[in-house]
Amino acid sequence: MATSNVKLLGRNGCPFVNRVQMALSLKSIDHEFIEEDPFKKSELLLKSNPVSKKVPVLFHAEKPICESLLIVQYIDEAWPNSPSILPSDPYECAIARFWAAYIDEKWFPLTAEYRKAEGEEAKAAARDKVVEGTLLLEEAFISCSKAKSFFGGDSIGYLDIVLGSLLGWLKAEENLTSTKIFDENKIPQLVAWTERFCANKAVKDFIPESEKLAEGFKKFEKLKAALNSN
Amino acid sequence: MATSNVKLLGRNGCPFVNRVQMALSLKSIDHEFIEEDPFKKSELLLKSNPVSKKVPVLFHAEKPICESLLIVQYIDEAWPNSPSILPSDPYECAIARFWAAYIDEKWFPLTAEYRKAEGEEAKAAARDKVVEGTLLLEEAFISCSKAKSFFGGDSIGYLDIVLGSLLGWLKAEENLTSTKIFDENKIPQLVAWTERFCANKAVKDFIPESEKLAEGFKKFEKLKAALNSN
Repeated sequence: MATSNVKLLGRNGCPFVNRVQMALSLKSIDHEFIEEDPFKKSELLLKSNPVSKKVPVLFHAEKPICESLLIVQYIDEAWPNSPSILPSDPYECAIARFWAAYIDEKWFPLTAEYRKAEGEEAKAAARDKVVEGTLLLEEAFISCSKAKSFFGGDSIGYLDIVLGSLLGWLKAEENLTSTKIFDENKIPQLVAWTERFCANKAVKDFIPESEKLAEGFKKFEKLKAALNSN
Repeated sequence: MATSNVKLLGRNGCPFVNRVQMALSLKSIDHEFIEEDPFKKSELLLKSNPVSKKVPVLFHAEKPICESLLIVQYIDEAWPNSPSILPSDPYECAIARFWAAYIDEKWFPLTAEYRKAEGEEAKAAARDKVVEGTLLLEEAFISCSKAKSFFGGDSIGYLDIVLGSLLGWLKAEENLTSTKIFDENKIPQLVAWTERFCANKAVKDFIPESEKLAEGFKKFEKLKAALNSN
């Protein structure tokens, strides 16, 4: 299959867009990046993703594919050349999909809830939930990696991309809340993994700098508040 | 691959369990059904699905797989004999996964919100959202089925199972709320599909009778309220 005719509609700094960029990079797929305005949804976005109206949208031969987890799976299936992203074994694949859904639907939203929590008690309860989740992810890493470097074994796979694409934001959350989410005393394997992942040539360019993200986030919230008050 | 050594932990009348039963039936996979108590989570459930603690859980050679959508995908991948459940084309597969996630995460929860809505205005707003969703599903059916009988084309596929497993409950919701969710004036293609689906030999035994579900639901709510007040 030709690798041309691929476009990615996204926003710089969006972890779900970074996720797709990582998958495209791993498979060495040339593509055009189309920047979406964070404040005004484009006609292209509304037409290509009318249900959730969110980036990323991948266009392959003009056909749109939405939702980052589904796009990464699509990339792996449409370009079956190596490296493989999802495990070839059906059971390992089911486990990887399970943890991917857990990360996106349960754990990552908990980190935002923690950031927004107000009052000592609510903050402590929200932090406990995040920590509980990281302990589960540490166990998932130990089980999936089988004493190798990545969730995917010797090389970066689906879960590496899913969690790894959030690392810039997670470090920004640590910065914004002055809390360590990745605590090497509690989750040493996962902390060592973050270092290996962030040093990997295929993906490191798509992990935004956390300081810039935290600054950008503060500006974005201020601008949003100003727009809402008009 | 042998079809023995398969167990399904579930509850009768649970649409997500019915979904797995439908997939097992389509692939003619013999299995043992283990009934889970709706009021007390079993040791087996807590051990095999410690994260979400929910049925269904499929055991294949003693290994547990959780989450109904993932279990159906697993069944299709672990028993690759025909009939195939997911489309073989990567783009069609991505589209089927997209609508499956839409049905489970957005549309089906809307039907429960409608049932629970109180007051004329809130009820009307909740009903509008459900109707808007059915119109999207009608479009999805037209697009996926390509003028054939099922979402999967000539035979039952992934989206047929995903939406079809909810039909008993959706009819029970219609009964409980005295509202037509599947209105043939608005979504004629989908209404005709429900009839074809419910008549299909491989799946019809796993669509619970809506009257029994509605009655059971009322009893369950009463019992839950009584237990909570003790």
